[in-house]
Amino acid sequence: LQLLEINGKIIFTGMVLKMEIIKGGITAPSGYKAAGIASGMKSNGKKDLALIYSDLPATAVAVFSTNLFKAAPLLLSAKRIKNNDIRAIIINSGIANACTGEHGLKNAGTITDLLAEKLDIDVNQVHISSTGVIGKQLPMDLYKKGIEQIIPLLKKDGNLEAAEAILTTDTTIKEIACQFKLPVTGNIVKIGGMAKGSGMIHPHMATMLAFITSDLNMEKSLMEKALKKAVDLTFNRISVDGDQSTNDSVFFLANGQAKNKRIVEEGEDYEQVFKALKEICAYLARAIVMDGEGATRFITIRVKGAKNIQEADQIARQIANSNLVKTACFGGDPNWGRIVAAIGSCNLSCSPQEVSVILNGKILFKEGVAVNNITEDNKLINDREINIDVIMGQGSGSVEFWTSDLSYDYVKINAQYHT
Amino acid sequence: LQLLEINGKIIFTGMVLKMEIIKGGITAPSGYKAAGIASGMKSNGKKDLALIYSDLPATAVAVFSTNLFKAAPLLLSAKRIKNNDIRAIIINSGIANACTGEHGLKNAGTITDLLAEKLDIDVNQVHISSTGVIGKQLPMDLYKKGIEQIIPLLKKDGNLEAAEAILTTDTTIKEIACQFKLPVTGNIVKIGGMAKGSGMIHPHMATMLAFITSDLNMEKSLMEKALKKAVDLTFNRISVDGDQSTNDSVFFLANGQAKNKRIVEEGEDYEQVFKALKEICAYLARAIVMDGEGATRFITIRVKGAKNIQEADQIARQIANSNLVKTACFGGDPNWGRIVAAIGSCNLSCSPQEVSVILNGKILFKEGVAVNNITEDNKLINDREINIDVIMGQGSGSVEFWTSDLSYDYVKINAQYHT
Repeated sequence: LQLLEINGKIIFTGMVLKMEIIKGGITAPSGYKAAGIASGMKSNGKKDLALIYSDLPATAVAVFSTNLFKAAPLLLSAKRIKNNDIRAIIINSGIANACTGEHGLKNAGTITDLLAEKLDIDVNQVHISSTGVIGKQLPMDLYKKGIEQIIPLLKKDGNLEAAEAILTTDTTIKEIACQFKLPVTGNIVKIGGMAKGSGMIHPHMATMLAFITSDLNMEKSLMEKALKKAVDLTFNRISVDGDQSTNDSVFFLANGQAKNKRIVEEGEDYEQVFKALKEICAYLARAIVMDGEGATRFITIRVKGAKNIQEADQIARQIANSNLVKTACFGGDPNWGRIVAAIGSCNLSCSPQEVSVILNGKILFKEGVAVNNITEDNKLINDREINIDVIMGQGSGSVEFWTSDLSYDYVKINAQYHT
Repeated sequence: LQLLEINGKIIFTGMVLKMEIIKGGITAPSGYKAAGIASGMKSNGKKDLALIYSDLPATAVAVFSTNLFKAAPLLLSAKRIKNNDIRAIIINSGIANACTGEHGLKNAGTITDLLAEKLDIDVNQVHISSTGVIGKQLPMDLYKKGIEQIIPLLKKDGNLEAAEAILTTDTTIKEIACQFKLPVTGNIVKIGGMAKGSGMIHPHMATMLAFITSDLNMEKSLMEKALKKAVDLTFNRISVDGDQSTNDSVFFLANGQAKNKRIVEEGEDYEQVFKALKEICAYLARAIVMDGEGATRFITIRVKGAKNIQEADQIARQIANSNLVKTACFGGDPNWGRIVAAIGSCNLSCSPQEVSVILNGKILFKEGVAVNNITEDNKLINDREINIDVIMGQGSGSVEFWTSDLSYDYVKINAQYHT
């Protein structure tokens, strides 16, 4: 259990970070600037426009939503990132520019054209990222004015403003940075990241944006491999409500300013980078879950001994997305019966007599039968953190999955949010 | 839209019944008796034990939960129903006798032994059905006393007491009966049914019990075929919370008392029976959805033009189980964006440019692009019934699916329900 103070707020992460944590978020690595402003796109006057800028072209990779209805900015980015470095990413919150057709795609292009012109950089190195209401066109006049305003504000410590400007229903910013020594070349490297949640959070990149910067010098193909693997083990293993968004993106930039000898193969240096990147992603993913709409408890689901990793994953997701399990957790009820029912819904061919369920360290269901040892002691009322361990007894497939409970406030936030 | 008064309560069914509806529920067909009592198994003193009795052995078929952890009564019934008629079914609510191991299976057997002895019938024609908390053993002393008490109360108009005794968190009884003329043989036949919901309601038979009686004379294999098909189109197309239970069962009995010439093949008579059976199942399924925990609105999802029926089904389920769609409906918000995001989550290979979404008759998303015509007029605030029509433009696969919204009360009911 780790409590981290960020921007005066305590963030509960449910994990022990193994890296040396430093201040500065996305601008902690050398060579990055950022800014965040309220351009007027959000009607409540909150910050809604963020800009990330790299002094030098950064090698860049990204992972995008698998939703069929990919938003315009994702379509644009997917094209550009293939063969180009990144110099700037402009991010707006409030309007997703999704389901906006040809017109939306043209608007996204126009914004990046303008930004490239004002920053005097190649438009192919400029990206736009959007989050918010689906189906509305970007307010182009406001957006253009916003770009004029934000560029002069770019600064080395603009990380907090930027991290704030990308939020929607999030209640707190989510940022982190760490540094570490590359074991082979000995250089000190920094990685920073910021993210936003907080509804429609689900495996395979739900309404979730994350931007990870670094001053690494590393081959693009290796960055791609590391990012995909890290996202798979972190952002793709969280769920708030089982829905998947049109706009999810994780960007990973490396501008080479750490001056390390370029990492071109999978050795010790690569492994160290992967470990740090995974930790950054895990921190941000957990912070998103904990700030999930209406969340009051952080739930870790560990499935062990499944036939294989696919079945372990399926079981963990079924539990994580069960409204009955999530409301029981909200109520602090050790309702292992609902967990068992969720496992049983998976359509697996395994034997019930091998399955056990452990709730916060106490075995409540052992090899297919209830243990019936629930006392006032093991009610979960006061636990902010709930651990669900499932032992399948079938093979060696195991996963860890993170989710939150389902509260009145989840319903309130999502029933009152209006189109 | 049809409002039906049952036991002094108005039931909203969202459908027009095409059959001649009669009173009497499960005892409307000739030759059935029923009873319902409070045996003390429920701590709140409500009715918790129901008995259905057929004067003559009834040909019987059933469909059971596909959950891996099938409850003891299901394991017992699955064996007995194969080669035996049914004379009696005893049903208790409050304790599910699920995840109770060998001991639970033995208890279920003991209860049916006792019932067979007291009623002086073959134990292979006796079934037990249970719903309630998972993991607790049946309170055998109370159960045995309950059997002594309930047998003398069996009567022709015991349908309402029985329908009440099978409920758990349901707020109202669910029963229906109809009669119709067989087109070929000309006999008048009656079918009656009762059911309970109301949480863990999900496709493939979630915590849901339904008992359907008839005075038909019909071949067992044809009854099986008709029931499977009817369940597939009704009980398996509803969802309250996406969870699936360990105890779901639908029984269908035919005792031959209508004296019709035995239906032994799929002709006009069979088709008429199937239509009536499907209508009975559809009524009960919709009544379960409308009485779903915390439900305030009835949502019908129709997917048309999918590649095939499997994809149509997948899309409808994804929408029906989306908490974001369900909370939007609760809030009366025509949030087609969440519907589109749910469709897009399905991992289909279809083209977004063909997809349209119609909400209560108004096109809000047309061929991949937002229509942006939401006015105060088409907000859904005052609609108890919400129709979501999705046009996929890919092929001829179509389904209809029923669900409810997600309200504060759903969370309340499920957070306060204690193990």
